[in-house]
Amino acid sequence: MEKVNLEELAKAVLGRLFIELEASGRHVHVTKEQAIALFGHPLTPKRALSQPGQYLANERLMVRGPKGEFENVAVLGPERREAQIEVSLTDARALGIDAPIRPSGDTSGSPGVHLIGKCGSVQVMQGVICAQRHIHMAPEDAKKMGVKDKQIVLLQVFTKRPVIFEDVLVRVSEDFETYVHLDYDEANACGFESGDLGRILQ
Amino acid sequence: MEKVNLEELAKAVLGRLFIELEASGRHVHVTKEQAIALFGHPLTPKRALSQPGQYLANERLMVRGPKGEFENVAVLGPERREAQIEVSLTDARALGIDAPIRPSGDTSGSPGVHLIGKCGSVQVMQGVICAQRHIHMAPEDAKKMGVKDKQIVLLQVFTKRPVIFEDVLVRVSEDFETYVHLDYDEANACGFESGDLGRILQ
Repeated sequence: MEKVNLEELAKAVLGRLFIELEASGRHVHVTKEQAIALFGHPLTPKRALSQPGQYLANERLMVRGPKGEFENVAVLGPERREAQIEVSLTDARALGIDAPIRPSGDTSGSPGVHLIGKCGSVQVMQGVICAQRHIHMAPEDAKKMGVKDKQIVLLQVFTKRPVIFEDVLVRVSEDFETYVHLDYDEANACGFESGDLGRILQ
Repeated sequence: MEKVNLEELAKAVLGRLFIELEASGRHVHVTKEQAIALFGHPLTPKRALSQPGQYLANERLMVRGPKGEFENVAVLGPERREAQIEVSLTDARALGIDAPIRPSGDTSGSPGVHLIGKCGSVQVMQGVICAQRHIHMAPEDAKKMGVKDKQIVLLQVFTKRPVIFEDVLVRVSEDFETYVHLDYDEANACGFESGDLGRILQ
């Protein structure tokens, strides 16, 4: 009889049931042209993020709304074809901006904002959203968990203040590592701590 | 046959199923002695709150932690036997304080904070908590909904970003009007807007 490696078995079972949570703070995606206007050069990577190819840039900027501003906001690379400014609803209130809850990339008709870098500033005409809570999934994990791209699921999180999030968007791509992304309102509402896990309920 | 008043009927049915949500911002309860030290006199009421006898005071104060401070923080009356400073986890992080999640009144061993009023300041040795999400219930509503004082329930909220909150504490008292109390992290995590409703699931 083959000897069972309990640790491997436990890992495999857990990997079919649970997904690690990550909290995303406010951050900005810019175009290459905007990066040059703001910083004098394209973005430079500081460290890799959990999603393959994505990085936190060395460059940081100020985001200024009609009511308030945030200094030292993270910029994520690589550059995109359109700017996107992802904030929590708490942040949006502080900026004085009515940010719609949208999937990433769906910025059509969203409010604009003023971005200020060390070399210049850019008035972005649209792009401020509150990212809809979502799960990045590698195709093999989506298959294991029986979910498809763009499916909306319930997600139970096993945190200090447990919550079941409704309306959680599943995004499946070869480019993804499997992680739940919450914003800081959601992370604090459930008492998230690094390493906490969630489970898809339906 | 008696004519059915549909509006009254709808109201009665809704009242058995749904509870109105309220978001509580950061606020402070002080003792009478602390009020006098901070403001030179006991608290004076500015406006009544949803819970009978409770009021927002005219007096406001600064709350200062090791890392940050909040100005112009609401003080709720009447005075209590012990100070209690209710903050969200976002607020706690900004103050640099590790606030435990506790039912109101359970401040034993919780961190302290510095309170600064227009006439003086007070170092509170304990009392900073993040209030456990809870439902204030009038006894007749608790009976209708089949729940008891101190019961822990699941609460589904019908908001812009729906969520099912676990670990929701039911408090039943003759002194209560029936309302769900969420903090601002929770309110923003679910996209709360004034008038939104919730429903006890179990």
